[in-house]
Amino acid sequence: MKKLINSPKDVVRESVEGFVAAHTQVEAQYDPIVVHRSEPKAHGKVGLVSGGGSGHEPLHAGYVGSGMLDAAVPGPVFTSPTPDPILAAAKLADHGAGVVFIVKNYTGDVLNFDTAAELAEFEDIEVRQVIVNDDVAVEDSLYTAGRRGVAGTVLVEKLAGAAAERGDSLDQVVEVAEKAVANVRSMGVALSACTVPHVGKPSFDLEDDEVEIGIGIHGEPGRKRIPMSSADSITDQLLDPILADMNLQASDRVIALVNGMGGTPSSELYIVYRRLAQRLEDLNIHIARGLVGNFVTSLEMQGASLTLMKVDDAMLELFDAPYDTPMKGL
Amino acid sequence: MKKLINSPKDVVRESVEGFVAAHTQVEAQYDPIVVHRSEPKAHGKVGLVSGGGSGHEPLHAGYVGSGMLDAAVPGPVFTSPTPDPILAAAKLADHGAGVVFIVKNYTGDVLNFDTAAELAEFEDIEVRQVIVNDDVAVEDSLYTAGRRGVAGTVLVEKLAGAAAERGDSLDQVVEVAEKAVANVRSMGVALSACTVPHVGKPSFDLEDDEVEIGIGIHGEPGRKRIPMSSADSITDQLLDPILADMNLQASDRVIALVNGMGGTPSSELYIVYRRLAQRLEDLNIHIARGLVGNFVTSLEMQGASLTLMKVDDAMLELFDAPYDTPMKGL
Repeated sequence: MKKLINSPKDVVRESVEGFVAAHTQVEAQYDPIVVHRSEPKAHGKVGLVSGGGSGHEPLHAGYVGSGMLDAAVPGPVFTSPTPDPILAAAKLADHGAGVVFIVKNYTGDVLNFDTAAELAEFEDIEVRQVIVNDDVAVEDSLYTAGRRGVAGTVLVEKLAGAAAERGDSLDQVVEVAEKAVANVRSMGVALSACTVPHVGKPSFDLEDDEVEIGIGIHGEPGRKRIPMSSADSITDQLLDPILADMNLQASDRVIALVNGMGGTPSSELYIVYRRLAQRLEDLNIHIARGLVGNFVTSLEMQGASLTLMKVDDAMLELFDAPYDTPMKGL
Repeated sequence: MKKLINSPKDVVRESVEGFVAAHTQVEAQYDPIVVHRSEPKAHGKVGLVSGGGSGHEPLHAGYVGSGMLDAAVPGPVFTSPTPDPILAAAKLADHGAGVVFIVKNYTGDVLNFDTAAELAEFEDIEVRQVIVNDDVAVEDSLYTAGRRGVAGTVLVEKLAGAAAERGDSLDQVVEVAEKAVANVRSMGVALSACTVPHVGKPSFDLEDDEVEIGIGIHGEPGRKRIPMSSADSITDQLLDPILADMNLQASDRVIALVNGMGGTPSSELYIVYRRLAQRLEDLNIHIARGLVGNFVTSLEMQGASLTLMKVDDAMLELFDAPYDTPMKGL
């Protein structure tokens, strides 16, 4: 295993230390580890918290800042954070108007955020939870009952964050987030595995000429393994299940996201985007906003995911609202 | 070779097609391939052109837009563009006040940009050239007489682009760019090689426990191969030669860039940044602006480079000037 780390046990902490040193929008507390906004609390604003296992950067800490999250909880690599840091994040995010947890649908995350929500209620913080489950690849999975939460999470965080920033109530922010979840679908492909630092070997094996369609962001199994084929063919095999699930109509508008898994050259992501744009144009579905880049990764995995979110004017207004977070490009 | 491409011969063109489909700031012409701003020409503004072999995205096309480049020339992967597309870019970038070419110091690039400059002069476009040679690793290299141009190029493009945008004259833009070049130094490390699509196999071999210090952005040889060691030790081995070359004094200010080579998880880049920030703090050198991310890549290579640019108030004002390009985060 070759990684630019000092020790597997220090990866998350040292990475967070570097992260807050580089970005003025964020600060961190370390026992337990929580990343939060450096700006003063905005009285009466709904707080927004997300988190999960590390290794998916810039998710979630990269999205902490004005217009998006108030705090993010980076768990151990590919492992849910325990309730303690989530509770600490809720306290940091609480501006007196309640807190929304945005939770990717993995069993450990759901359980621990749920426990943290109960603990927060004991401390008079009203907490509501929104579960993101945008991955159409599989119904249940290795770590999940129901569909997994993947790259669509970023779009949910953007819309809910903008709603909270403009002063929406707790109910209204939850409504925005749930509408975003209801309208977002994703699916991914892996060309190679990634190596979790404390494991020290690749999380699965793929043959030299094989890719896995429907991969999860922790390398958990997808739909099928197929021989390597063209970018256009692979794009189609990700897009078709998404379209089959969404019931999009001609003249519908979408936000289209081609997400890199961490180790994919951006030129390849744009070749995927090219095919996606052609396909949607043929269907007379309008890409209102197009995003290409590493938004939700799996360490150094090579591969990509497609995400489509059906949007209306109200959602686009939230997507376009100003934000200032370490990660740019939304 | 597993890549999300359709055919090696179509990689650059299809990637550019996806790129301009995703980003409203840019358009492309295809015969020959040039990426240019979509906004109307600004009469009297100095034009700024850069380019080079593809495979280093987002360099250069990602930096086309208001406040940075007017046009970028993506050559074949890791291969200099010929004079024709460079001349075409000069014409697109010419707003009547002359054009500056920003050229990374590789023999092919220097030769072809030079020829294009001569051809442009025949068409009454005044062209000036600035050569970037920020890599302290080696004096001459596989494709270079003198030092190579690497990630510092982005900072040169940002400062020169801001100067052109505010209405500086041709002489003034060249002066800004040359001052930027004089104050920027870089050095990189590779943990793994990358594969050029039309070659189909990795561009060099590294043992499982070996890294190459001083690597070039095309995988050309660096200073030495060493056993894999800690992120802190490797960071020191990149930083020390940079510091030895720069003659920084206590209380000097720098822009510090930790650049990913394409396949490196961002968590690792932040661990490198952490060490860099600690070392500079110990020397009482102030990081005025910190950047961490994939700014100048080598396809899917795993590794990183450090760049320091010594800055004064005038340079920081240019660095902070607004810009709107497909790549964000400067």
